[in-house]
Amino acid sequence: MTAEIIAVGSELLGAQRLDTNSLFLAEQLQGLGIGLQRKTVVGDSEQGIAAAIGEALERADLVIVSGGLGPTADDLTREGAARALGRSLSREDRILETIERRFRDRGLRMPEINVRQAMILEGAELLANSQGSAPGQWLRAGERVLILLPGVPVELQAIFAEECRPRLEKIAPRGVILTRVLKIAGLFESQVDERAAPIYQKFHNPTTTILASPGEIQLHLTAAGAGEAEAREALNELARRLELALGDHIFSDDGRTMEEVVGAYLTVRAKTVAVAESCTGGLLAERLTRVPGSSRYFLGGIVAYSNEVKTRWLDVPAPVLETAGAVSAEAARILAESVRRHFGADFGLGITGIAGPSGATPEKPVGLVFLALAEEGRAAEVVEKRYPGGRERVRLQASQTALDMLRRRVK
Amino acid sequence: MTAEIIAVGSELLGAQRLDTNSLFLAEQLQGLGIGLQRKTVVGDSEQGIAAAIGEALERADLVIVSGGLGPTADDLTREGAARALGRSLSREDRILETIERRFRDRGLRMPEINVRQAMILEGAELLANSQGSAPGQWLRAGERVLILLPGVPVELQAIFAEECRPRLEKIAPRGVILTRVLKIAGLFESQVDERAAPIYQKFHNPTTTILASPGEIQLHLTAAGAGEAEAREALNELARRLELALGDHIFSDDGRTMEEVVGAYLTVRAKTVAVAESCTGGLLAERLTRVPGSSRYFLGGIVAYSNEVKTRWLDVPAPVLETAGAVSAEAARILAESVRRHFGADFGLGITGIAGPSGATPEKPVGLVFLALAEEGRAAEVVEKRYPGGRERVRLQASQTALDMLRRRVK
Repeated sequence: MTAEIIAVGSELLGAQRLDTNSLFLAEQLQGLGIGLQRKTVVGDSEQGIAAAIGEALERADLVIVSGGLGPTADDLTREGAARALGRSLSREDRILETIERRFRDRGLRMPEINVRQAMILEGAELLANSQGSAPGQWLRAGERVLILLPGVPVELQAIFAEECRPRLEKIAPRGVILTRVLKIAGLFESQVDERAAPIYQKFHNPTTTILASPGEIQLHLTAAGAGEAEAREALNELARRLELALGDHIFSDDGRTMEEVVGAYLTVRAKTVAVAESCTGGLLAERLTRVPGSSRYFLGGIVAYSNEVKTRWLDVPAPVLETAGAVSAEAARILAESVRRHFGADFGLGITGIAGPSGATPEKPVGLVFLALAEEGRAAEVVEKRYPGGRERVRLQASQTALDMLRRRVK
Repeated sequence: MTAEIIAVGSELLGAQRLDTNSLFLAEQLQGLGIGLQRKTVVGDSEQGIAAAIGEALERADLVIVSGGLGPTADDLTREGAARALGRSLSREDRILETIERRFRDRGLRMPEINVRQAMILEGAELLANSQGSAPGQWLRAGERVLILLPGVPVELQAIFAEECRPRLEKIAPRGVILTRVLKIAGLFESQVDERAAPIYQKFHNPTTTILASPGEIQLHLTAAGAGEAEAREALNELARRLELALGDHIFSDDGRTMEEVVGAYLTVRAKTVAVAESCTGGLLAERLTRVPGSSRYFLGGIVAYSNEVKTRWLDVPAPVLETAGAVSAEAARILAESVRRHFGADFGLGITGIAGPSGATPEKPVGLVFLALAEEGRAAEVVEKRYPGGRERVRLQASQTALDMLRRRVK
């Protein structure tokens, strides 16, 4: 079974934006054993959309179109699909009521243009949108299937998971492709590959790719099998060997993020944490609180951007700031210990450093960061790091190291 | 003059990688006044590549193919192009010598497979590759032009700049294409379009597309002109009218983010800000500190995730928490006023709300957020919002509203 993806949107033909929805869809199709053979991006032109859909339906069993289902005049996917299939569009009052209700619930009147989102193609099955107003549409064209999805990622992903996947599982072939992602912290890409390549290169199934982002290296294992059990066994075999080689640098093998892993440990151990951060500017707290339910273990944080806040609120003595400096092991230790004590938490994390581009000195270059983990009844653990990259990468890496220090302590 | 881009590579059909070369090529084509009408990604299949090239040459004046010019067996762009055009491939000894010399210079013998990189299409002009071994190829097919470029970004960019651009400048129309992005806060997409569509629909140049993300609507204006002045004038004309219709909901027309705009105003006015946030969990502080130099105006923040932190550190009285609740206008006001006073800032921002998925009640649903802006000598401004979407979207929208409140005050 073959598939093609068409992304609609003139902005995706410019110099700024890429069609990232296709990454999600490619992964989903892999999981269903459906081979993606082509991706196309077209602009907001009814004729261009119609041509792309028509051509794709001649080549592939399944065509998924994302984008162009919004309410505005440049949202033309419905019209383009209708033209490609030679079908009519009509208003579905049930959809219109749902859209009107969404506006009413927020105390708003539905603008007239939103009526366009209730237009559906002749013969379409509606795909309910739990995250927004425009439903997806599922169409049969002979033996072929055409799916229209909104371009907003959260809506596209919800509709695919809730509505498309169950339908596709019924018609997809039985072979399966499974992937597993090993997430690794505390090693550089070359260090990971030095340990992992001699192992994964011996395997033709699964195949392995290595991906690096600031503070996190990922090994993506992809296994094919006649059935789920066979594919899973192939994954397990390679993953076991990689885990032996990489040890507890692997913090996740089930898709969870670092902050989710840390949150799960804290929840199980019934421990709490508070944070005091300077150069990361709130990123550490923000990452901890991305996780639903984080109020169980995250008490709060102080973003101590100015020296006065460090001194008055986190007890960093003025002499420390003057001699060792705000970016020092001593300052990091006091930040972690003070916020832990003040907020009554089991653990305290402190971060201070030079994110750049300004603020650096010959002794304290951009990327120099001190991190501390405090816990009652034992000396604070303090580490010094020199991260590569600019402001954003330094901040990301620092937040990752801090979370990893806490993970190793509570795991 | 119209163009299409084809990216070749099976890895670009997986769940990890996107064709980023097309961003560079899109920008270059814009600068040449050539309209990009479609992008296609195909895998490493001779037949698939041939089909994509053949179809694109029927639609567009210029087709640029990237990737698939390497030495290995899965590099099939040469063969695909030869099949699409019905031309032969032959070995060019001059190229072969260059490739052999590159290996020799590094003390290596050229592997036999690299001979493939010296195969060129009948009638091709060679495009010298100053950064690698495979040359690009430039082909005329009737009135149409086909360009083959290697997929390695540094090689593709060098060949385009040194070899393709000068050739294209001779055959491209003289025009240029400019874009401008108007960023809008405080209105929904449909509200923006209701005001903007009657204006931009009257213009065929610039063309306008509308893009929505949580808390921010963008109008992308794209103008073509014989010269830069003409294109700029067309942009100015439409932008002026849109600015009249949308007023100070437009916070940026030069690419800057909301936090950059706010930071610039605070810097000019020499004012400072401190923040106290609950449901956004540090996101507001994190956004403010993304901006280099934000230490000039951002003093710090408190992430008050637990009620104890709200009471002990931000003076929210226990009776307020018990009666009005932590998510209330009163709590937001006290958060903003207390953090402003404690940190000695000119402005204080406070946010408290229900980001979900848990914590909601019938009276206080997910998405209910109270935001407050405090300033010495005047009553705090407090607003109540009900944002659509899940946890991440609610948090993004709340941080955007808070920044927008501050922007309107200091602008």
